[in-house]
Order: sequence, then structure tokens, then C-alpha cells
Amino acid sequence: MQKLYIVKIGGNVIDDEAKLDQFLKSFAALKVNKILVHGGGKVATEISKGLGIEAQMVEGRRITDGETLKIVTMVYGGLINKMIVAKLVANNNPAIGLTGADANIILAKKRPVKNGVDYGFVGDVEHVYTLPITHMLSMGLTPVIAPLTHDGQGNMLNTNADTMASAIAVAMSDAFATELVYCFELKGVLEDFSNKESVISDITFEKYQDLKTKGIIDKGMIPKMDNSFNAIKSGVGSVIICHADDLVSIVSNKDKKGTKLSLQ
Amino acid sequence: MQKLYIVKIGGNVIDDEAKLDQFLKSFAALKVNKILVHGGGKVATEISKGLGIEAQMVEGRRITDGETLKIVTMVYGGLINKMIVAKLVANNNPAIGLTGADANIILAKKRPVKNGVDYGFVGDVEHVYTLPITHMLSMGLTPVIAPLTHDGQGNMLNTNADTMASAIAVAMSDAFATELVYCFELKGVLEDFSNKESVISDITFEKYQDLKTKGIIDKGMIPKMDNSFNAIKSGVGSVIICHADDLVSIVSNKDKKGTKLSLQ
Repeated sequence: MQKLYIVKIGGNVIDDEAKLDQFLKSFAALKVNKILVHGGGKVATEISKGLGIEAQMVEGRRITDGETLKIVTMVYGGLINKMIVAKLVANNNPAIGLTGADANIILAKKRPVKNGVDYGFVGDVEHVYTLPITHMLSMGLTPVIAPLTHDGQGNMLNTNADTMASAIAVAMSDAFATELVYCFELKGVLEDFSNKESVISDITFEKYQDLKTKGIIDKGMIPKMDNSFNAIKSGVGSVIICHADDLVSIVSNKDKKGTKLSLQ
Repeated sequence: MQKLYIVKIGGNVIDDEAKLDQFLKSFAALKVNKILVHGGGKVATEISKGLGIEAQMVEGRRITDGETLKIVTMVYGGLINKMIVAKLVANNNPAIGLTGADANIILAKKRPVKNGVDYGFVGDVEHVYTLPITHMLSMGLTPVIAPLTHDGQGNMLNTNADTMASAIAVAMSDAFATELVYCFELKGVLEDFSNKESVISDITFEKYQDLKTKGIIDKGMIPKMDNSFNAIKSGVGSVIICHADDLVSIVSNKDKKGTKLSLQ
């Protein structure tokens, strides 16, 4: 099977134009089958503020009301997505910007109200249609996917980019040897959060349980790690969590960097 | 050669949700090769106002400064484009939203300063790459194209939707028997602007010159008409200017509606 890299790039890199440019330059240079999934960044919050729309938070999670849905559709699906696409194309990497609605690639279900909490227009992935994605890859295009899905009824939905990357990687594993790479602002999963160099290079599922019990894994990392192990259990070849600057080294197998997750 | 319809839908229909829904429903029902090019509508102006960005106008034309470019990229490429795509997909019409940057389909050049007027980030179409568009059509996808292009250097550019529709129609004419349909809020080109029923059903290039000289053609229609005749001269099979409600009748050849332009 051919290899396919599904790379997720987070908000911190997107918010910093110089970092983003550097990342996209190295991403563009990778001559492999690849998909880029991007997060949101702070722009949506800034624009909401500018328009006088208050962000509603419940337990640290943003509630997507109707107005916020419009903002994220604009910012994630328009501004950020097209900025990335234009820059990749300028770096000789034919890219195509997509949301879950485009070519119906990612169908989601509006999250039901749970324990009295209504997250609003948030979508949980129901199905990834791989055929259009595979076609685009075979045309030499790099799909650049915004964290938005649709409900099949004509409505867009806000969806977590980490979850989307993982769902896409799982679905594509039928036809490709997939590698899921989460790029962010740290060098990997840290043993000691105050020491940014204390990267744990390998984590098995058993070790993960142990690290969680001991409280070593930072709370913010848990959803990403859960997503990752679920992906591996569902057919993804490997998951690496690493710094955006280390993507090229990792793909070219030059250096062992970041944290590699495996079942055992 | 297979037929291909390039349909342009204007801002007035986009601004009215009920009208847009009705239009998209009938557009989705057309079982033909088709491309939809959409205009901008008033949302960009409203959001600019909300953010305190004043629209700069020179001779009735909006100047696209850096902040305005961000707004139109968000609104045209994100909000409007994805709303249309999600609705078409909900109507069983697999659609894919694109700007000129996506798959590098439409390369443009930033308009040079002319007579002291700097239009800012406005792009004039330089080249349409038909291969990715043709591939998407052969996958059964309907391209939905926002009025945005890119300069090949990583920057998006604001581009007139009428011009884009015409440039796409011309480029696709090498491989398809193209028909360009401009849908808007009137029933066609009117003999008497105060009588909305006074549609001129056929206009040859000679008649157009005559109507212009006599001042019968409304000034606002002239760029659309010039675009149209240029398209026909460059290989487009036919151009029709009609009401959004009449698209289905026209495509199915049921009734003769709208204004048909021809060289002679």
C-alpha cells in the first residue's frame, strides 16, 4: 500500500504568520501523499469580539451559536483555509481547500444536548467519504481541510480539528498505509511540563494509562492522546505528536523526534 | 462534444435566503454538466461595517484594501461558498466549493494602478487551468466558484464574478460545448427599464451596438454584455441573461425566456 501522511497543524502556528510560512514551505517540499488538516487559531475570537459577539463558554468549551457558526465558517473555511492554499500553491504544491461539506467528504451529526449542555452547532463526525479524497490525491492535489463539517441537511457544523484528522486517517487506512502527525508548538508529549525538552519518545497504550494515573500527562493532551490511540486501534499505522518544525525530519526518517504512539 | 453550463448567480439572489434556496433546489435538479459561479452580496459590506471598516469607493467601484481583502476572502470563500455547497449537497447535488487558488484553477494579476486609481487587491484573470475542473466534472462534482483568484505568489485577489464566469466558460470551450447563463433579478435585458416585462429576446452584436448608441441598454448592463460578447467571440456556444427563476426552463428548452446573445 502507498503511504499517506495526515498532518494536523494547530492554532498556535496559524496565528503566527512567520511560523506558518516556514511550516508551509517545509510541508510543500514533502513529496509524499499528504493531507493537511488545520485548526482555527485566534482570528475567529478576534473577529467575534470586533463584531460584538461574546464567546459563550461552558466548561472551557466554546458554544457555537448561530452567529459563531457564521464566524467560524468564514474564518476557518474562508480566511485561514484559502491563505494556506494560496501559500502552498505559491510553493509549487497544488492544494485544494475543503470543508466536510465539499464533495460531501465529512458528514457529521449535530451534538445532542447532554447533561443540560447544548454545544450548539457542533458536529460529531459520522462518516468520511474517502472516494473524492482518493481521487484528489491521485490528481496530485493536497487536500487542505478546515475544521468544519455538515449535517447533510444544508447546515455547516463546527468540528474539532484533532478529531477530524483522526477520523480522516482512520477512513483512509483502507486504501493507504496511513501516518497521522499532530504538529503543535511543543516537541512532543513531555515528561515534565516545565521542561520543554523532556520529550517522551515512545508511548504504548499501557504506558499511557500509567502516565495518566500518575498525572504526568498534561490534561490538555488527553483528548489528543485518546484520539490518537483510537486511531491506531482503528487501523492507522502510526501516530506522532511533534513540533511543527520537526515534520520534515520525521517524514524523511532523518531523526527520531517527537512522541510516537503505539499499541504495544 | 458534451454540453457544459456555466451559471452565474448574482448578489441579489444570494442576499435573499428564500430565493437562494429556491434557486439552488432547481439548480440541483439539473442533470447536466454544470459549474456555478457566485457573486458576493451585501454580507461583506455588513460585516465590514460591523468591524468599523469603511468601504472605499472610487467611481462607484469598491477599493479592495488589505482589510477588505480579508473580509471578502472570509465572506465569499467561506460563508457564502460553503452555505451554497452545503445546500446543494443536501439537495443530492455533490458540489465542491473553490476559489481561483484551489487546485490553482484561476491565476490572476493584481490590477496595476491606472490614471492614479489603485484598486488595491483586485485581480484580473490571467489563466484558467481547466484540467482540475474537467477532472471534478468527470467525478460527478459541480464546482461552485467564489469570486476570488490568486496571484501565484501566495496572495488572494478579489475578482468580479461576471468576468470569472466568462473566463471559465471561454477556457472550458476547448473541451465542451459551453453555454454561459447569467442569472439575476430581472427577466433579461430590457427594452424599457421601467417595464420589467419588456425583455429583448435576441441581441446580435450589431443590435447591441445600436442599442448602446440609442442609450436603451442600462449602463449597469454594459460590463455584463461586453463580457458576454467577448465570451462568444472566444468560443462560448451561447450566452443567456435571465431571471434566476427561469434557469430550469432555459436549460430544459421548455420555454424561450431571457435574452439570448449571439454574434449575428
